[in-house]
Amino acid sequence: MSLIWLNLNNAQETRHGLQIFNSLFMNNLDSIVAYFEAAFREEIKKIGQTVPQRLYEPVAYSLMIGGKRLRPALMLHAASMFTKSIDHVLSAAMAIEIFHNFTLLHDDIMDKADVRRSLPTVHKKYNENVAILSGDAMCILAFKYFSMGNEVRLHELLPLFTTTALEVCEGQQFDMDFETRDNVIVEEYLEMIRLKTAVLIAGSLKIGALLANARQADADLLYEYGINIGLAFQLQDDLLDVYGDPDVFGKKKGGDICANKKTYLLLKALEACDEQTHKELNNWLLKSDFEAEQKIAVVTAIYDKTGVSDATRNLMRSYCDKALFALEKVAIPANQKNTLIAFAGEVMERIK
Amino acid sequence: MSLIWLNLNNAQETRHGLQIFNSLFMNNLDSIVAYFEAAFREEIKKIGQTVPQRLYEPVAYSLMIGGKRLRPALMLHAASMFTKSIDHVLSAAMAIEIFHNFTLLHDDIMDKADVRRSLPTVHKKYNENVAILSGDAMCILAFKYFSMGNEVRLHELLPLFTTTALEVCEGQQFDMDFETRDNVIVEEYLEMIRLKTAVLIAGSLKIGALLANARQADADLLYEYGINIGLAFQLQDDLLDVYGDPDVFGKKKGGDICANKKTYLLLKALEACDEQTHKELNNWLLKSDFEAEQKIAVVTAIYDKTGVSDATRNLMRSYCDKALFALEKVAIPANQKNTLIAFAGEVMERIK
Repeated sequence: MSLIWLNLNNAQETRHGLQIFNSLFMNNLDSIVAYFEAAFREEIKKIGQTVPQRLYEPVAYSLMIGGKRLRPALMLHAASMFTKSIDHVLSAAMAIEIFHNFTLLHDDIMDKADVRRSLPTVHKKYNENVAILSGDAMCILAFKYFSMGNEVRLHELLPLFTTTALEVCEGQQFDMDFETRDNVIVEEYLEMIRLKTAVLIAGSLKIGALLANARQADADLLYEYGINIGLAFQLQDDLLDVYGDPDVFGKKKGGDICANKKTYLLLKALEACDEQTHKELNNWLLKSDFEAEQKIAVVTAIYDKTGVSDATRNLMRSYCDKALFALEKVAIPANQKNTLIAFAGEVMERIK
Repeated sequence: MSLIWLNLNNAQETRHGLQIFNSLFMNNLDSIVAYFEAAFREEIKKIGQTVPQRLYEPVAYSLMIGGKRLRPALMLHAASMFTKSIDHVLSAAMAIEIFHNFTLLHDDIMDKADVRRSLPTVHKKYNENVAILSGDAMCILAFKYFSMGNEVRLHELLPLFTTTALEVCEGQQFDMDFETRDNVIVEEYLEMIRLKTAVLIAGSLKIGALLANARQADADLLYEYGINIGLAFQLQDDLLDVYGDPDVFGKKKGGDICANKKTYLLLKALEACDEQTHKELNNWLLKSDFEAEQKIAVVTAIYDKTGVSDATRNLMRSYCDKALFALEKVAIPANQKNTLIAFAGEVMERIK
């Protein structure tokens, strides 16, 4: 909270109550997050006060839980790389964040996840019907916000948004399919996380650039940056599920292990381990009745033994390199790329 | 099927495989349904073949179950009232039908309904997670189709679509809220069905008219027609739940009664009956453990005794009158209104 408060000083309150962002401060994602958060909280407040309350209050709750606001910040930053004024991008940025939170809300029902960002998930706090319908309203709200402020380019950008949104659903379906399959290969996993995670990050950057009238080639390069950063981001997520601090990360430890998620760690471990360990690992995957803590401990020990954590870090590094290579080709002055260069480093080191 | 087959002769196959509708035949909703159905089935086939199959096959199943295709037919017909060529309206018509089926799919999970149009609902045929995610994909697909073919007016029409879509969710939430409330009044019920049913019918007509460059005033009058027809339509739905033939109607008899839906029939019965019957009715509403058939029989007998069926028909008639009054004011030749005049009559008499 204090970080947001400090950074809010970078945004200026106008007579209209709107935040006009000073582009001098654009070279810092934290500042953009604060700029976005201030405007977004106003909207969340309005949404939460709409009737029927049992529909919109859970929407506001889900949006308020917050998170990193990564996608809207990247969209706004991408716009700021090509233009000084980015206020017209705010609605689309909110749309992306609402859509992202909608997918989390419904994923949590499907994954039977009770906790998100250290708070009860919507279906736990309310009930499943409320969570389904509030999620539906959020999906529609995302399109509502997307249609605001983008009048001129809407017919061009809406298909990009809908395609990306469908890909996110496809990624989630592959993820669920993989839980009951025992022959998932690394390439399938990487395609799944491209869909489930990377395309929305990439789409955010591309939409931001296009809304700032960037050249198509530059927008496409930012998309490529986003895909590679998104893949690295998800791989770090998989690492944090096993090796992160639950209090910082905001999720229960070993959730992926318990749900038999075919993460890169698991697939690599199955590839790298000896016959006996392979058998042991497979046995744990087949068990329907188990002590969560024991399963997590055994599988983590196998991960440690097979060194899959290093393999994951190496793959992340190669994605980061590809991202930076794409960024390098964007036809703007090099110093305007500093934030995205720094962000690539942060993705590698993040702990939450 | 034979009806569709016969009517398909009114649509002509072109070299491009597209159906070009001859506006001479526009004065018949059945013909438009057939025109729409032919094009829509091609799309459903494509959707059903998309991977991941476990995401898109249930989408195709849900869309194939079909139904009356009422909303797209009304949209296409509204367009045909103002222009000869309506092919550019097809995508928006598909969008409305996909959206409508999405709401049914998720409503069926929430209502724990096992059967729709005499077939197992998606969550019954597959499972609940599949139904949630496929529904999400349908909601997004609706916006995808809506963005196709409407480039010029998209920024104007998308807010109308998103507002309408949100209203449908609001209606569903009120409907669920009412199930556990014992003080619902008739006005609240009518507002609920306006949101849940009427606005999508009205929105379909208005969007169709606007896509055919109708004057705003005429589009608004068709919206008014649609709201009133939609209210009458839902009241007939409530009647059919109790008095319809389940084999024709496609739903189990008395579903509303079992679920304590606060329909117009129930609210009117509570208003009109004597003290003892009121008590009896309330007792049935409070029972959580009951024989469905017995509850349906007793409540239906009370409906018969209190004459709520006549009261419902009277209210329907007054909505139809309002609808026709609005239609009369639309500034086009009277003979171009015949189909919507006839449709108002059909809504009053429909049995499925």
